[in-house]
Amino acid sequence: MPITLADIAEMLNVPLPKGSSATLITGLATLTDAKANELSFLGHDKYVKQFAATNAAAVIVDKAVTLPKDISDSATAPVRLVVDNADLAMSVVLKRFAAPIPRPPLGQSNDAFVAPSASIGEGARIGSHVFVGDDCRIGRNVVLHAGVYIGASVELGDDCEIFPNTVIRERVTIGNRVTINAGTVIGTDGFGYRWNGTNHAKVPQIGTVIIGDDVEIGSCVCIDRAKFAATTIGAGTKIDNLVQIAHNVKIGPHCIIVAQVGIAGSAELGTGVVLGEQVAVRDHAKIGDRAMAAATSAIAEDVPAGEIVMGTPALPRRQTLREQAAIRKLPELRVQVQKMAEEIEQLKKRLGNA
Amino acid sequence: MPITLADIAEMLNVPLPKGSSATLITGLATLTDAKANELSFLGHDKYVKQFAATNAAAVIVDKAVTLPKDISDSATAPVRLVVDNADLAMSVVLKRFAAPIPRPPLGQSNDAFVAPSASIGEGARIGSHVFVGDDCRIGRNVVLHAGVYIGASVELGDDCEIFPNTVIRERVTIGNRVTINAGTVIGTDGFGYRWNGTNHAKVPQIGTVIIGDDVEIGSCVCIDRAKFAATTIGAGTKIDNLVQIAHNVKIGPHCIIVAQVGIAGSAELGTGVVLGEQVAVRDHAKIGDRAMAAATSAIAEDVPAGEIVMGTPALPRRQTLREQAAIRKLPELRVQVQKMAEEIEQLKKRLGNA
Amino acid sequence: MPITLADIAEMLNVPLPKGSSATLITGLATLTDAKANELSFLGHDKYVKQFAATNAAAVIVDKAVTLPKDISDSATAPVRLVVDNADLAMSVVLKRFAAPIPRPPLGQSNDAFVAPSASIGEGARIGSHVFVGDDCRIGRNVVLHAGVYIGASVELGDDCEIFPNTVIRERVTIGNRVTINAGTVIGTDGFGYRWNGTNHAKVPQIGTVIIGDDVEIGSCVCIDRAKFAATTIGAGTKIDNLVQIAHNVKIGPHCIIVAQVGIAGSAELGTGVVLGEQVAVRDHAKIGDRAMAAATSAIAEDVPAGEIVMGTPALPRRQTLREQAAIRKLPELRVQVQKMAEEIEQLKKRLGNA
Repeated sequence: MPITLADIAEMLNVPLPKGSSATLITGLATLTDAKANELSFLGHDKYVKQFAATNAAAVIVDKAVTLPKDISDSATAPVRLVVDNADLAMSVVLKRFAAPIPRPPLGQSNDAFVAPSASIGEGARIGSHVFVGDDCRIGRNVVLHAGVYIGASVELGDDCEIFPNTVIRERVTIGNRVTINAGTVIGTDGFGYRWNGTNHAKVPQIGTVIIGDDVEIGSCVCIDRAKFAATTIGAGTKIDNLVQIAHNVKIGPHCIIVAQVGIAGSAELGTGVVLGEQVAVRDHAKIGDRAMAAATSAIAEDVPAGEIVMGTPALPRRQTLREQAAIRKLPELRVQVQKMAEEIEQLKKRLGNA
Repeated sequence: MPITLADIAEMLNVPLPKGSSATLITGLATLTDAKANELSFLGHDKYVKQFAATNAAAVIVDKAVTLPKDISDSATAPVRLVVDNADLAMSVVLKRFAAPIPRPPLGQSNDAFVAPSASIGEGARIGSHVFVGDDCRIGRNVVLHAGVYIGASVELGDDCEIFPNTVIRERVTIGNRVTINAGTVIGTDGFGYRWNGTNHAKVPQIGTVIIGDDVEIGSCVCIDRAKFAATTIGAGTKIDNLVQIAHNVKIGPHCIIVAQVGIAGSAELGTGVVLGEQVAVRDHAKIGDRAMAAATSAIAEDVPAGEIVMGTPALPRRQTLREQAAIRKLPELRVQVQKMAEEIEQLKKRLGNA
Repeated sequence: MPITLADIAEMLNVPLPKGSSATLITGLATLTDAKANELSFLGHDKYVKQFAATNAAAVIVDKAVTLPKDISDSATAPVRLVVDNADLAMSVVLKRFAAPIPRPPLGQSNDAFVAPSASIGEGARIGSHVFVGDDCRIGRNVVLHAGVYIGASVELGDDCEIFPNTVIRERVTIGNRVTINAGTVIGTDGFGYRWNGTNHAKVPQIGTVIIGDDVEIGSCVCIDRAKFAATTIGAGTKIDNLVQIAHNVKIGPHCIIVAQVGIAGSAELGTGVVLGEQVAVRDHAKIGDRAMAAATSAIAEDVPAGEIVMGTPALPRRQTLREQAAIRKLPELRVQVQKMAEEIEQLKKRLGNA
């Protein structure tokens, strides 16, 4: 599947230097790793040295990058494809090189179980050892990879893809074009107990989970069903691996939830919220639109819209950075204070003598 | 499945206002979300305003809540069901509205594998694509949902329910009335290696896992087998999703372990210990009865019985809160100390001149 | 499977006290838990009291341990097997007592699916409900336990063991003698999106995962495929449960990655790096050979080879300990500074009067 530089230049709608059109490109790599038949990219001035030394046949260069004249004019410099946005251009080229995802054949594997009462849309692909429970409504062109479990009365929209061994429990509702990666579990009972004097008695969790259109969910993610009503994930939100989303959490559209985040019960995220790796969110906390939390932050209070927070407990990033800088100096501050205390004692003595 | 308010009042053993008996209730919701045919609840004074504005047909009200006279006497106020304990009352009503869990039919699915030497109790339900290994002893009324793996020689008590795709490895012992949610793995080898000069040589993990009666375990939980003897989970303990429990950990009865907690090797928890979201426990740490750790705490030392700890490293909560308050003021403390240092210099100069 | 003390002494190549050769040993236990027919071990002086009180029939004692004369000479003291290295000796004995892992029979279960184009090595064991996709190359003596998913074009070396319900996605390459525990997912798309003004557009993840020889991976681990090229795990590296390894991460050989660690995109670990429980590593961070990070550290900057780091943000351990000690004293430092401020004011007043 190699393609010519001319094809790539056409895809990106950029001009090509003379004589390079027929160069065959076999893949993509970083400036450092690229071999002589690969394409690379340069998106920031700080990688200019790597650009000068790369073996890549050609490099996508963001127009914002300033190449020193000796480098850009060098006879050994690779071919440059200058673009308005190197990230976007890379996405276009990656798509061209992407191998198709291997999928089960059209229809239903003969070693899958599909309840007779389930309704399956046209174009669906149901893999080996899949289980589809009673009264499910599975949309058109849905792909259920091997080992997937779809509980009774689940509604799954069109064009969804569910990767192997994922579990979607009964009565969960999922929109269109949703991707759920392998090993994820949607619809476990929320974690709710009431001490009755001798035991933690289970509080029934009679709600469900509702997932909007265009959501992507990683691997080994847990999204629990609500105590009542629904745990909800807004359209376009993307969730990384190993994330915990407890009962009755409400996540707005277009959020980014990075790996290993934990969101406790009834917390609410607005639109476009970004939570970094391993962030913890307290139960009932409200996080406003477009707020962001740095990796490993522990959010214990509401976060206003647009705020960037950091730390444990999470505070405005600028404040946490200021406190961290002060902590860095704390041991020497203590030394200084002891010295000052002695000086004060001496001053007191001298004054006493005065 | 709607029921009348009269039925609900009877369940809760409380009187009903005249004329409301026949009102049909279709479900439960928060005061804010409830529709005109739903029931809601009021457990705390701080939600009194939401009570005044709710559309709910009726509200379970904790007797500890004080309703202002203008609200309680309002002609538009919803019907009140005053109870001794709103949480308990909600649990009772939730149970009434809970849909039954869809389960495999009685007996063994024809696409499951059950070793001939396994013993299966009466009333068991073994779903599609389940694997039950040699010499297992599965109790009465056990439910193994689709895709569950039960390794050889596992003992599983009566009335257990194991949700889809969960893995219970060989020789693990599980009590009665235990629930294990989907995607969990019990009995992986403990993480133990010994550097032999060229490699991390595996230390054999020949022990097992023993889980007591009435334990509930969430989804994607990992409980490792012991190096020797057993990793143990006490009766009545409840474990949330994505928790890590390492080899030789001993957890007492009635503990509450919230999501994403990590408990390192040979740590010991007493009775009724509560660990919040993302807590880390160091290997060999001992946590006393009824001790509690706030979310994201890192427990590096033993915790006495009844103590409430917080922070990294975890310290008594009061101490951590005091230190955090001091850190909040640290940047300005540094400014003050610099100013004081200048004042001392001036005093020294003045005294020098004296 | 009990064995005599004479057999154990022979395995360890140590002399036995007279008359104890025929003693039958049925298992291993700690000094405190051991019963009269069990073997125990003593690796450190601090457990000498437990040695004195143990019921064990015999105890492996590290030669570095000093036993007080009254204890070593006591008539009731257990038989001692004095060894150069108690850990190593324990490993040898544990191996002797280890029960064999129950495995699927040789060949292919009739309820597994193996694509006709897949190549399966001699001696392989393919369990129930396994899926092996097109064009896979599975090595000799490989064990695929029940419910395992091997995507198309995966290469799996010789003598690998993949535990139940693990998912290895398409085109992943795995070396020889690799163990992957249950419920793990290798080869999920990296978490990469680009905001296009209205949506988070997916950045294609066209790379793969390459895992070296002798790697062991725990349960519910997620290792994502690279954006391009490969996420790589070096030979001999050991990874505990619930670990997240993002796209394009490069992990060197012989690393130890403890449970619940999260390593963000394009981070690089050298040789023999050790990351404790719940450590977070920032994207693109470089961690040098043999560096170590204490549990719950958050690594936000590069770590030099050999450094031991700790804390959030992770700093050299000694510095973090010094800062933590200073924080412990911070509340009283604040009190002291207020007192000093008053004293300065008094000094100023007195000087003003002077």
